Amino acid sequence: MDVDYGLPRELSDLQNKRAHYQPLLPPCLQGTTVRVEFGDGTTTADLAGHHVISHSFPHTYGQPLAHFLRATAVVADAQIITEHPAMRVGFVFSGRQSPGGHNVVWGIYNALKIHNPKSVLLGFVGGTEGLFAQKTLEITEDVLATYKNQGGYDMLGRTKDQIRTSEQVNAALVACQTLKLDGLVIVGGVTSNTDAAQLAETFAESKCATKVVGVPVTLNGDLKNQFVETNVGFDTICKVNSQLISNVCTDALSAEKYYYFIRLMGRKASHVALECTLQSHPNMVVLGEEVASSKLTLFDITTQICDAVQARSEKDKYHGVILIPEGLVETIPELYALLQEIHSLQREGVSPDEISKQLSPWASALFEFLPPFFRRQLLLVPESDDSAQLSQIEMEKLLAQLVESEINKRLKLGTYKGKKFNAICHFFGYQARGSLPSKFDCDYAYVLGYICYHILAAGLNGYMATITNLKNPVNKWKCGAAPITAMMSVKQWSHGPGARSVGKPSIHPATVDLKGRAYEMLRLSAGNFLMEDIYRNPGPLQFEGPGSDTKTIILSVEDQDYMGRIKKLQEYLNKVKSIVKPGCSQDVLKAALSAMASVTDVLSVMTTPSYSSQSYI
Amino acid sequence: MDVDYGLPRELSDLQNKRAHYQPLLPPCLQGTTVRVEFGDGTTTADLAGHHVISHSFPHTYGQPLAHFLRATAVVADAQIITEHPAMRVGFVFSGRQSPGGHNVVWGIYNALKIHNPKSVLLGFVGGTEGLFAQKTLEITEDVLATYKNQGGYDMLGRTKDQIRTSEQVNAALVACQTLKLDGLVIVGGVTSNTDAAQLAETFAESKCATKVVGVPVTLNGDLKNQFVETNVGFDTICKVNSQLISNVCTDALSAEKYYYFIRLMGRKASHVALECTLQSHPNMVVLGEEVASSKLTLFDITTQICDAVQARSEKDKYHGVILIPEGLVETIPELYALLQEIHSLQREGVSPDEISKQLSPWASALFEFLPPFFRRQLLLVPESDDSAQLSQIEMEKLLAQLVESEINKRLKLGTYKGKKFNAICHFFGYQARGSLPSKFDCDYAYVLGYICYHILAAGLNGYMATITNLKNPVNKWKCGAAPITAMMSVKQWSHGPGARSVGKPSIHPATVDLKGRAYEMLRLSAGNFLMEDIYRNPGPLQFEGPGSDTKTIILSVEDQDYMGRIKKLQEYLNKVKSIVKPGCSQDVLKAALSAMASVTDVLSVMTTPSYSSQSYI
Repeated sequence: MDVDYGLPRELSDLQNKRAHYQPLLPPCLQGTTVRVEFGDGTTTADLAGHHVISHSFPHTYGQPLAHFLRATAVVADAQIITEHPAMRVGFVFSGRQSPGGHNVVWGIYNALKIHNPKSVLLGFVGGTEGLFAQKTLEITEDVLATYKNQGGYDMLGRTKDQIRTSEQVNAALVACQTLKLDGLVIVGGVTSNTDAAQLAETFAESKCATKVVGVPVTLNGDLKNQFVETNVGFDTICKVNSQLISNVCTDALSAEKYYYFIRLMGRKASHVALECTLQSHPNMVVLGEEVASSKLTLFDITTQICDAVQARSEKDKYHGVILIPEGLVETIPELYALLQEIHSLQREGVSPDEISKQLSPWASALFEFLPPFFRRQLLLVPESDDSAQLSQIEMEKLLAQLVESEINKRLKLGTYKGKKFNAICHFFGYQARGSLPSKFDCDYAYVLGYICYHILAAGLNGYMATITNLKNPVNKWKCGAAPITAMMSVKQWSHGPGARSVGKPSIHPATVDLKGRAYEMLRLSAGNFLMEDIYRNPGPLQFEGPGSDTKTIILSVEDQDYMGRIKKLQEYLNKVKSIVKPGCSQDVLKAALSAMASVTDVLSVMTTPSYSSQSYI
Repeated sequence: MDVDYGLPRELSDLQNKRAHYQPLLPPCLQGTTVRVEFGDGTTTADLAGHHVISHSFPHTYGQPLAHFLRATAVVADAQIITEHPAMRVGFVFSGRQSPGGHNVVWGIYNALKIHNPKSVLLGFVGGTEGLFAQKTLEITEDVLATYKNQGGYDMLGRTKDQIRTSEQVNAALVACQTLKLDGLVIVGGVTSNTDAAQLAETFAESKCATKVVGVPVTLNGDLKNQFVETNVGFDTICKVNSQLISNVCTDALSAEKYYYFIRLMGRKASHVALECTLQSHPNMVVLGEEVASSKLTLFDITTQICDAVQARSEKDKYHGVILIPEGLVETIPELYALLQEIHSLQREGVSPDEISKQLSPWASALFEFLPPFFRRQLLLVPESDDSAQLSQIEMEKLLAQLVESEINKRLKLGTYKGKKFNAICHFFGYQARGSLPSKFDCDYAYVLGYICYHILAAGLNGYMATITNLKNPVNKWKCGAAPITAMMSVKQWSHGPGARSVGKPSIHPATVDLKGRAYEMLRLSAGNFLMEDIYRNPGPLQFEGPGSDTKTIILSVEDQDYMGRIKKLQEYLNKVKSIVKPGCSQDVLKAALSAMASVTDVLSVMTTPSYSSQSYI
């Protein structure tokens, strides 16, 4: 940990030019006067779990939404924060690096200094371990200079991705008190933001003055809910991976002799794989969510791919590109069950050599069926979130091998009459994660950082910075903050003995919505993608000219503006109030009563847990 | 082969914008009037081999260089081609795809049509197999529309990379005669251009009217000699790979816990690895040429890497990025010798299962020492150029494993006191090869295509299109043509029984020049790269703005202009002639004689085979 952090460094021409790019601010954050409008107190979409959540977070559950508005906005209840005392804010990168993280720091820094030049921003060196050990680096213009709009987390480094055990939480509390922090900003994904919420609650309980703010930064794109449309880094990762996938598609079509099996990063959810498919039109993608919803087995998936290879061979095509999300292994029922048995034996301290002997008969049979490299990978110690080491499990190789032997079998039986099947496997992960962030991610991260300041200036605790209406240009973005607890849900089923998430309120990774528009687009094109080789190459990430302002297709087609709709509803309610004032006619009052009775009836039914258990998963 | 070639297709915004990019032409090729100046007859740098070459190529060896000049250029002997009869030209992609290939087609097409709209360009579908089978696609504006400035070879496809056996050569001859071709353009690397030279000779011998032209297109960058400064595709491949390597460097520095071992494409030579190192400053690169020149063993290389890991651990650094060219396996003496034994047994028809038993005792011992995955890869059938299947041999995994066990050994001995060594392996190959070509490669390929027309218009056979002065802007480029035979050499030593290249004149892949400026740059920085993590990120390939006009560092620092110097020498000789005319004073004549006698003495000594055998490898 003696690496020199925050030192200036040599930049390439392009890095240098990027370092001079200044992200725009939406109108509501321009200048030093910002209004805060508070909405109603929040609830959570998990109706069955909300008692558990409110019980676990007595101080931070149910807080209102906050909207940041222009100083000139005409909103009755909005308040202007006029006092800007000097503030001490701490900042920590928690969890895996994601392109754009540095810009969150920059945004906070600029907002702090514009409102009070005496304010101080301290970066914790080496992630959460730096927080526990109180190792800080004061962020200055000099420190920032060569990290603006740059990838990685190397300005400060990162380590473990959790603040969870009571030792860790206590260490964080002590650090914030010792350093006299007014605010602590935690940058990360679902796990880190769950930890942020817990920390906020603990701080409130302990009467610690430090307010905790979370920022949604994760390349997986799985911190998605009513308030959060996308995550910092997702745009860049999808663009870099789509470039590479497209290059492989072009390669496949030029050489006409290989099937490429490409595994993509993204943890449990398949958002990256879905976006890359919509961008580059490979022949096939095996989404984890489809597999889980149809309960497809390894055999089913192999058969699907083999049928595709066979259908293509009948059109004299012997090449193709197949995408596989890294989370797939955990969505295939029998592999998931096998992993659960292995992890449970590992928790009991059974040594790797012994595990295979102690598996149940069916699990043992499956284990022995798998090739040795894959068995070794399944035996790796699970991650801190209890999932398998997804980046290390070469699912693409397993599928390629299974497909090859099935095709060879069909060849012998005479049902497949084509040429030899040749597979090449790739894992696209680490080579995208450190990329220069896209313009979108630069802007999004910077503005989120800026919002963090306003959350702290408003004295809010346990909130996440949010921006909605992201598919539109920056000047249309709506800035706000939502209590992190409003994004939580409680898993009611068992994961196997001792698994952490059971019954504990958490932000859970959002999976691909199989009823959403993005998936609908894929479903409609899948047949053409499979057979017609209509590969599309979005090209390398551009910073000027065409393509530099494009956003992910998922963001562009999904109709999200939840925060806008919440505000619209407020307007309707206010309008009713303003029309039906004391003194209005009896008829108007009767009509209002009757109409509102009907509305409340419908909504009451829809929000009983018994109703929701049918539709809410 | 029923895939529909040359069909229009959907392009992304960026692809579409690129499709509308019009490469510039250097002044000498603008308009329809071009002068051709012929230089002296050519020789070859391989003095010992030049008798063999001239004997093998009686019709095409020793032809003069050609320079294409502006119509207005004042050069005494230059001739203007005024007749432009309609021409029929065939075009074939030979060998592996390289970004920019499509632009060669476009350049030929435009030059043909501008000089005579009745000229016809036929593309052979599916590479050399299309040539042998006479499967053609007439190139039109419509066919080209969606392939201009695009990657891959998918407009026409490609298959085998050779035109070598007498059946193949005859099939090509019949095809050219049947299709009444005036010219045949072959696009490819060292092998394909050697084949082009052979075809030119055979056609001349058979009094076939078709002239053969070669174009240097190979991402390996190893078709490099006095006449050829770089190859189409090399610039793009290095840029895409440098982007990815830089991303991995950023990732390494952010996470601080992994050593990344990255293997790069590039065949036998390490040009790609060298350029990527100069671009992105990884901690280490193991150049095949250094290994060969120092005769480093697997053990030596492992020790070098372990020493580096150890030195870094003493500075508390547990991350790093190490580049490995795919050709490395053939430059490590003991692995090379083992491969030779294996290939020789394969040629005798020994089955894969039997090979390990029939190896010599020392080779068998080495073979058994290697991990099973690596043994399987060594047993793959060699490529058409007799090299191992470099893209399939995971040298990076072997080194990572050897380093890991050596570090563990040192840990036990107490000589290494650091943290656990963790490696992640990558192969960057297929994901770069299909990239959109860089602006440089678009321009270079287009202009080379244009030159092909002028070579054919001048009636030349067995020439390669050449451009020199490439490090300068397009308007300074010098266009010419050199006989392919002038680039050949003859290997005088044995490769093992039956290996093709022994004694046969060929263009051999140029390896990294360990006395060159680019290598010198690396040597001077290697210590800093290793210890200081001065990673540099050139960023993704740009088409507008900063970085879009950069060229490879190798091209920029090397002082090449061979063609320019040849012309300069001609000028000196002419000057001497013009000063020492009959009638000049006796003193001037004496001085000239004495000076020229000394010059010719020096040059005679330098060009005897015995002198050259000391300095020429």
